[in-house]
Amino acid sequence: MIKYMTIKVTSDDFFFDGLSKEGNTDNPFGFGATQGNVLAFPGLNTLGLSMNRVDLARGGINAPHSHPRASESVVVIKGKVLVGFVSTSNVYYYKVLTEGEMFIIPRGLVHFQYNVGHSKAILLTAFNSQLPGAVIVSRTLFASNPPIPLEILTKTFQVDDGVINSIESKFA
Amino acid sequence: MIKYMTIKVTSDDFFFDGLSKEGNTDNPFGFGATQGNVLAFPGLNTLGLSMNRVDLARGGINAPHSHPRASESVVVIKGKVLVGFVSTSNVYYYKVLTEGEMFIIPRGLVHFQYNVGHSKAILLTAFNSQLPGAVIVSRTLFASNPPIPLEILTKTFQVDDGVINSIESKFA
Amino acid sequence: MIKYMTIKVTSDDFFFDGLSKEGNTDNPFGFGATQGNVLAFPGLNTLGLSMNRVDLARGGINAPHSHPRASESVVVIKGKVLVGFVSTSNVYYYKVLTEGEMFIIPRGLVHFQYNVGHSKAILLTAFNSQLPGAVIVSRTLFASNPPIPLEILTKTFQVDDGVINSIESKFA
Amino acid sequence: MIKYMTIKVTSDDFFFDGLSKEGNTDNPFGFGATQGNVLAFPGLNTLGLSMNRVDLARGGINAPHSHPRASESVVVIKGKVLVGFVSTSNVYYYKVLTEGEMFIIPRGLVHFQYNVGHSKAILLTAFNSQLPGAVIVSRTLFASNPPIPLEILTKTFQVDDGVINSIESKFA
Amino acid sequence: MIKYMTIKVTSDDFFFDGLSKEGNTDNPFGFGATQGNVLAFPGLNTLGLSMNRVDLARGGINAPHSHPRASESVVVIKGKVLVGFVSTSNVYYYKVLTEGEMFIIPRGLVHFQYNVGHSKAILLTAFNSQLPGAVIVSRTLFASNPPIPLEILTKTFQVDDGVINSIESKFA
Amino acid sequence: MIKYMTIKVTSDDFFFDGLSKEGNTDNPFGFGATQGNVLAFPGLNTLGLSMNRVDLARGGINAPHSHPRASESVVVIKGKVLVGFVSTSNVYYYKVLTEGEMFIIPRGLVHFQYNVGHSKAILLTAFNSQLPGAVIVSRTLFASNPPIPLEILTKTFQVDDGVINSIESKFA
Repeated sequence: MIKYMTIKVTSDDFFFDGLSKEGNTDNPFGFGATQGNVLAFPGLNTLGLSMNRVDLARGGINAPHSHPRASESVVVIKGKVLVGFVSTSNVYYYKVLTEGEMFIIPRGLVHFQYNVGHSKAILLTAFNSQLPGAVIVSRTLFASNPPIPLEILTKTFQVDDGVINSIESKFA
Repeated sequence: MIKYMTIKVTSDDFFFDGLSKEGNTDNPFGFGATQGNVLAFPGLNTLGLSMNRVDLARGGINAPHSHPRASESVVVIKGKVLVGFVSTSNVYYYKVLTEGEMFIIPRGLVHFQYNVGHSKAILLTAFNSQLPGAVIVSRTLFASNPPIPLEILTKTFQVDDGVINSIESKFA
Repeated sequence: MIKYMTIKVTSDDFFFDGLSKEGNTDNPFGFGATQGNVLAFPGLNTLGLSMNRVDLARGGINAPHSHPRASESVVVIKGKVLVGFVSTSNVYYYKVLTEGEMFIIPRGLVHFQYNVGHSKAILLTAFNSQLPGAVIVSRTLFASNPPIPLEILTKTFQVDDGVINSIESKFA
Repeated sequence: MIKYMTIKVTSDDFFFDGLSKEGNTDNPFGFGATQGNVLAFPGLNTLGLSMNRVDLARGGINAPHSHPRASESVVVIKGKVLVGFVSTSNVYYYKVLTEGEMFIIPRGLVHFQYNVGHSKAILLTAFNSQLPGAVIVSRTLFASNPPIPLEILTKTFQVDDGVINSIESKFA
Repeated sequence: MIKYMTIKVTSDDFFFDGLSKEGNTDNPFGFGATQGNVLAFPGLNTLGLSMNRVDLARGGINAPHSHPRASESVVVIKGKVLVGFVSTSNVYYYKVLTEGEMFIIPRGLVHFQYNVGHSKAILLTAFNSQLPGAVIVSRTLFASNPPIPLEILTKTFQVDDGVINSIESKFA
Repeated sequence: MIKYMTIKVTSDDFFFDGLSKEGNTDNPFGFGATQGNVLAFPGLNTLGLSMNRVDLARGGINAPHSHPRASESVVVIKGKVLVGFVSTSNVYYYKVLTEGEMFIIPRGLVHFQYNVGHSKAILLTAFNSQLPGAVIVSRTLFASNPPIPLEILTKTFQVDDGVINSIESKFA
């Protein structure tokens, strides 16, 4: 016979206050992210959705990245933000959004958000996965552990070692 | 041979500004909703997510309803809102949320949002469906077209005709 | 290395006799349900379907409810039964079924079955989920634990406290 | 702009009476099936479930077959029926069912139903697909159009041409 | 609070060399299969795909079978192979493939591969399931444990006991 | 009433010979790919899988890329190939494969294949999508149409305009 473990569930299991707190943008990208995925908020388990908060300092950027397991919608809560993505046909689609405006990123495509306003910006992003994951292009290629072999990167970008070393030094 | 129709896609196809506009709350519920689903925003097609904006006047309510095809996350953008749902075990879970706080509603459960603050409130809700649908309990039972037979409702609520007629008159 | 637990599987694991037994309809609704879901019948695990038996006394009703995780087909095995549901566009669809006739309820919509014949009725219902769940509208709103606040219900139905208290007393 | 075709939907679109009619069992197998799938009952479209009725004369058999796209539950409505399937580990699981009893067949496995009672039998089967399809083993191998080459079948069953020809003649 | 077990993951967890080894074809079917499914290659877990290698001696056959949980693509790596399947409409589709050519088998349909060249053949097959399973028709019907009752098989193929016994003796 | 268009289906609809032909590797990457997805091979429609052939000249590379809609398995048919991917935790996993060896790439992760042998190499890749799509990192960032704004790229890689311009010139 199958036994089920009894777990005491309370209202707090469905509640998450992480998105109410400003992320730290004191870094070279002027970028702070707070993830409301199933690791931070276990109540999302089996529900198939999650949300993040993104804070961008003036001129800050959420650098190009993709989510392997989710489409994304982006809504600007505060500020003026350029949102763009590149399709698998290599077309760049983009829009400058202000408060309340929404942009969508199809599953797995590389996209970014860039604060083009005169003050800090806040965005909410929603995903149709409880654990969308993130592949940050620059860190994936230039800051993995262990590093991707140098010749892979020089061949990929058709540049010499110096250019690759120069970029990698920024992510050390 | 299969032919594919060529459609000109532009950045605007991924953009929706409907959520930036305040909904009209001048009604008995003090409630306005703006749906950012695939009917309003065709670019969501095949992407499996959508978002709504809910405006609540002081004391306003987004009356008990369920979404047949999606789980939901609720984030308060402005104000102080009681969010609650009832599980299939008939347990009522709830929380008063303030700005930036998040609550989740498992797929298909009856839930509501009620403005318990001193000013109007704004919420964003996200769904893991591009067309979550909504079943508003009161309208479903008391304002369908054609009406559900009276005896169904008196048996359901174990009350006499007068009570049912009285409720139905509010939704005429 | 991953180890797998060996479980002795027998033919009985795929067999369930719960639906062969008449449900008890000695209650105000004249209604008895026997659930053949994965909790009652563990062999359904991962199979993505389940079935219920519904017994209705003369005049009995399976009160308005929805299944959060499944579409449903209803077949009358015995008797004459009114089956109805309300769409998300608030249209009421219905039919009186006799033996062998089938009606379908799209996922998550509120529906009911009502014995309109002169003797007791039996129905089989099939679901495309091993655990469809059930949200019984009247119990969800008027008999949850803890109760939904009174003002939520008076605002929802636009009635005064007396009407709500009166209905709740039936489900105490 | 996307245009949607308006279709007039009525209650009859959700109703199917095909399962109320006895299937014709006047054939060598004593078997009649009525399919309530999306081709017979278009209202099932997108709903992800369907049901069949199986009639078996005394001694009749629903010969070994599999459904490529669905798990199946079998309920005996009348009579006494042996239901069996073979797992991918080549274990034969089976049970004799009487009225109201249920047996389940995991997706894609070969199974059969055989009337072992003294009168005719009726079964209802439910599927978690609106178009489960059926692969009837004997007809697939011995009565396809065009025929499977003889050498494939002699190698498969390790028998000579005469045995294959003999079986094929039954399905001509 | 939920705790997660930490597992040390290495590159070897994503690597499988089973398909590089020739299968043993020293049997009546001239057939050897190496399965690269999640049981042999645990790293496939949750990834939803797998691959097999099939070796066929001259005249060898991968006898008619179906995969309950996956569509299949077949690519010939070496040799000349007849690949065929039968649809649910009982149509036999087939093709003789040489190196690098591809054929597809829709989910759950009975299919086979037969070496029609003058030397041994190698195939790679890919599946959209990490555990597609296999139902080998001949073994399912004639070599299950326990055996399917004789009368089921004689009724199925409309032959007498002798034919069934003769076939079963080949699989003893 | 719903009408279905009749399409004449033949065995050729399930057959694809594109993977039997060597891809052209006469380019700076020494790379040629032949896609066996649903656009090239319409018979894959609804089947949920596809396969590609990758040819690599000596020293050739299939540059870092991801597939938004599929996990991938890689099998080396000829030669000696370094296959690597980077996880969402930024760990680089890799292996040098020889003939018949298999490596797997979880959905949406950036990966590459690099010919480290002394002659040309051939790989077959399988996907659990009929249209996995490909996001080639270098082309996405440095060769989109229109181009991603320069300041996005300088901020992303924390380098000056000269480095970006230099890389972009390689992809003009």
